[in-house]
Amino acid sequence: MSETAGFVGLGQMGQAMARNLLKAGFRLRVYNRTAERAEPLARLGAARAAQPGETVPPGGIVFTMLTNDQAVGDVAQGEHGLLNALGEGGVHVSMSTIAPDTARWLARRHEERGQHYVAAPVFGKPDAAAAAKLWIATSGPADAKERARPFLEAMGQGIYDFGDDPGAAHVVKLTGNFLFGAAIEAMAEAYTLAQKNGISRQKVHDLFTDTLFACPAYKGYGRLIAAQRYEPVGAPPSLIRKDFRLVRELADRSETPMPLADLIHQRLTATVAKGRDDRDWAGFAQEASDDAGL
Amino acid sequence: MSETAGFVGLGQMGQAMARNLLKAGFRLRVYNRTAERAEPLARLGAARAAQPGETVPPGGIVFTMLTNDQAVGDVAQGEHGLLNALGEGGVHVSMSTIAPDTARWLARRHEERGQHYVAAPVFGKPDAAAAAKLWIATSGPADAKERARPFLEAMGQGIYDFGDDPGAAHVVKLTGNFLFGAAIEAMAEAYTLAQKNGISRQKVHDLFTDTLFACPAYKGYGRLIAAQRYEPVGAPPSLIRKDFRLVRELADRSETPMPLADLIHQRLTATVAKGRDDRDWAGFAQEASDDAGL
Amino acid sequence: MSETAGFVGLGQMGQAMARNLLKAGFRLRVYNRTAERAEPLARLGAARAAQPGETVPPGGIVFTMLTNDQAVGDVAQGEHGLLNALGEGGVHVSMSTIAPDTARWLARRHEERGQHYVAAPVFGKPDAAAAAKLWIATSGPADAKERARPFLEAMGQGIYDFGDDPGAAHVVKLTGNFLFGAAIEAMAEAYTLAQKNGISRQKVHDLFTDTLFACPAYKGYGRLIAAQRYEPVGAPPSLIRKDFRLVRELADRSETPMPLADLIHQRLTATVAKGRDDRDWAGFAQEASDDAGL
Amino acid sequence: MSETAGFVGLGQMGQAMARNLLKAGFRLRVYNRTAERAEPLARLGAARAAQPGETVPPGGIVFTMLTNDQAVGDVAQGEHGLLNALGEGGVHVSMSTIAPDTARWLARRHEERGQHYVAAPVFGKPDAAAAAKLWIATSGPADAKERARPFLEAMGQGIYDFGDDPGAAHVVKLTGNFLFGAAIEAMAEAYTLAQKNGISRQKVHDLFTDTLFACPAYKGYGRLIAAQRYEPVGAPPSLIRKDFRLVRELADRSETPMPLADLIHQRLTATVAKGRDDRDWAGFAQEASDDAGL
Repeated sequence: MSETAGFVGLGQMGQAMARNLLKAGFRLRVYNRTAERAEPLARLGAARAAQPGETVPPGGIVFTMLTNDQAVGDVAQGEHGLLNALGEGGVHVSMSTIAPDTARWLARRHEERGQHYVAAPVFGKPDAAAAAKLWIATSGPADAKERARPFLEAMGQGIYDFGDDPGAAHVVKLTGNFLFGAAIEAMAEAYTLAQKNGISRQKVHDLFTDTLFACPAYKGYGRLIAAQRYEPVGAPPSLIRKDFRLVRELADRSETPMPLADLIHQRLTATVAKGRDDRDWAGFAQEASDDAGL
Repeated sequence: MSETAGFVGLGQMGQAMARNLLKAGFRLRVYNRTAERAEPLARLGAARAAQPGETVPPGGIVFTMLTNDQAVGDVAQGEHGLLNALGEGGVHVSMSTIAPDTARWLARRHEERGQHYVAAPVFGKPDAAAAAKLWIATSGPADAKERARPFLEAMGQGIYDFGDDPGAAHVVKLTGNFLFGAAIEAMAEAYTLAQKNGISRQKVHDLFTDTLFACPAYKGYGRLIAAQRYEPVGAPPSLIRKDFRLVRELADRSETPMPLADLIHQRLTATVAKGRDDRDWAGFAQEASDDAGL
Repeated sequence: MSETAGFVGLGQMGQAMARNLLKAGFRLRVYNRTAERAEPLARLGAARAAQPGETVPPGGIVFTMLTNDQAVGDVAQGEHGLLNALGEGGVHVSMSTIAPDTARWLARRHEERGQHYVAAPVFGKPDAAAAAKLWIATSGPADAKERARPFLEAMGQGIYDFGDDPGAAHVVKLTGNFLFGAAIEAMAEAYTLAQKNGISRQKVHDLFTDTLFACPAYKGYGRLIAAQRYEPVGAPPSLIRKDFRLVRELADRSETPMPLADLIHQRLTATVAKGRDDRDWAGFAQEASDDAGL
Repeated sequence: MSETAGFVGLGQMGQAMARNLLKAGFRLRVYNRTAERAEPLARLGAARAAQPGETVPPGGIVFTMLTNDQAVGDVAQGEHGLLNALGEGGVHVSMSTIAPDTARWLARRHEERGQHYVAAPVFGKPDAAAAAKLWIATSGPADAKERARPFLEAMGQGIYDFGDDPGAAHVVKLTGNFLFGAAIEAMAEAYTLAQKNGISRQKVHDLFTDTLFACPAYKGYGRLIAAQRYEPVGAPPSLIRKDFRLVRELADRSETPMPLADLIHQRLTATVAKGRDDRDWAGFAQEASDDAGL
């Protein structure tokens, strides 16, 4: 019988991912800072832990899906944190969107204790998480990735590996979020241009996403942008603005000018500054409409 | 038996499109300013004309696929131009990428003579044109579009209509070129960021275009950008820079600020200014690499 | 006694400039499309003409200060235009902000008739025009510039010459308007940043324009931006948006990417699209405040 | 007789500033990490300290002029740092360009010990520092600012106060560096446009900086940009890139989109990525030339 794994972080994404692990027959011990979010999983058979470190025995494997670098640092450190709990040979599979340098720093802390850090951030909205249709990028030590694989396969539809560097998969994740943002900005400007020239946003959307842009990123976000209804909320603007802060820091550190990334960050910042954080982050498309006087 | 249609403009695109009309059984009379480009089609049975106006009898139908507004104006006007030749009831199917206002102006000139202007610009590179896999946007008078339809179906794999306004399909075409440029810029920055962080451009490209960006625009241009080899040349930077000039004029006239369109125009301008017009226009991706010191 | 000069174009700027010519003792024959604008000058002794061409005898000198390329072309051409009226040896001193290529085209038309075109666009707001404190850039044939000099000296406080090319001074004029726009955008972002960090816009403005930015451009526009009151209207956003269209075309033709010029054009376009054309063009500074949620 | 003050940080700027304090009759005890930089001041009568904390007695006043937040944190903290040395009633006058939040954090640490933090960043290049012509922005507790005033007057030509918040003067300093960068970008694009249209960079520079932009910022940096010789090095691109990182973080935290600040950061990043850090930071103007194919 399979080992019991830990799972820390039961937000919209983590909740769905943990559920798929349970469905696949894995036994889980789960933790969330706001404890009531663990209840639905408990009803499906998950054990509940009072501390992050109690989700995993020495030598065990634990998955984290948290909001930001700070939250990952918090569950790793401290008396009841993962670093203390994992013992020798334990594996921390880190699926959050965090800075590559944070990942590298944390990987070193784990290695100092004979533990392993596997980067495994995911692509996909909450509905993809629920359907076990995430795409997963991985990096880190080969043995640890091998141990994580059956779990990851239960949460996603494909795994792409980027080698040993524990920061690498996080770089890839940030790159992907940048690409999504670029697609949103592109459609925002394109559909606004059409609208201001008397052409239906929806018809333009249909043409392009039936044909040359027939892919999930354009279809998914574009539907919201065409209709100018930014629901349901996959992730709010403020959350992804955090990701673009990481993109910008990464670009800065690696000396890579990214004017389009900066534009998207400006748009997200305007969205938040205008108090429009109650919608999906694709709602930053409204900035292009605002600027056009619509 | 079907009527003989005229075809004016036998560049890389027009050549392939006319060939597909012949293959489909249409009879053609063709014209190109540089006459030798008509030879391959003549060998396939096309008649050759010495003037644009000689490609089409009064009341006939003629297709144009030319480089820019100026060239379309030139073949339409003048003693031996299409306006004089088309007589009453003739149809001009204009497939070039031109300014919507040029199209509207020309449509009025045709209407004054009892003729009809159908806008039918196309999406697709020369290989798509050769495979009759173009996507075609149309607008203009319904009867004339109906008459053009069998021809268009022989050149493309799908037709999207945008109503009566003869400028509308051209707006859509420019919108599409903008979306391509946006995808190129996005991948240029993304793959450069990956590269500067020690990650393979190709592997990042594979992940994204296998999954969330699995569509022709990203796969097609992205392959060039990942490999940093901008061949074969679908269209050179200077040609598409002309299109972005039209995008900017359209945005300006319709009071639509488009920062991303401006960025792409800056990139294309730098590419041409640096003497890099010997490659496909996706080669403007190199500007992101230049700025990163690569 | 000095010759009678023609003056065409009696808007806010032209009115003040013509008045200074009269004050300096020059005799004027003036024309404006809306005839009543000539009345104040007539009361000061100017003769009134019913057509542009009637302002100037063959061989004479005429000054134009008009809104755009179209208006300059209109007064130059036509039966009663300047080209027909100026005869041989006449001089057209063109002080409007127009495209360098328009100037070059018009200069050739004049030269064909043995006439001369002097480019003499001006820097300064209406109050500077009223005080004869304009700065004037000139270019064109040396003799004609010499003939124009006493007139120009009566309208401005300094003349800078840029050689023979009739387009050159117009390039310089557009370059200057770009620099003004850049200063406005810079102060807009700077003062907004200060405000959002709890610091008085006015105090920041005072510090910088007392010291390192103690110059008319920053003091003049900055006062409006600090106070966020964009009055009086030196020139409305829509008028200067026309100038930035010319800047962009010039940059495009000379293959000069200008991201900051594009940004300013975006701001001006948003200002016009939002219906804010009732203020001085420095009012585009409000876009930065809008984006910051203020 | 006046008290002995401490001075920590003897780079190009600090060296010149400390020298002016000595000239004005103040007694100094100085410290620099690289000890030999203290020698010229020692020859002028300054005492030398082996640790930052040894420059100042309990209750004394100490000035710091350091490269970045890290360096300021380092001299403040640690066994031999300023926090331990200043005792009760001591004053730390912090003249470096640092993040407002770093300043606020440090001010709280000082207040906990009964000490005071005065923000007093400066505007001016090394030549202005040498001539005691700096402009100084201050903020912090009123009494401590009063105590610092005679020293500041010996280093600068004017002091502008921004109230109690220890972060405020640092916000103003960053705002000023942003304005300088904006002026550099503006002139870079303007002079490049002129050059590509056959007009002398120098003549355009002369016109504008004689007239509407007749101020130190435009004259000083513009001279380098007109000549395209970026010497002497007031501050290298990498150092000011650090400042723009702080500007961006400040803009991000205060939810202020700043597209022009982002553009300047992109330019500085490209400059550093291309290995061009051996010149004055105004050398980022070359990016505009690069993009124009010059």
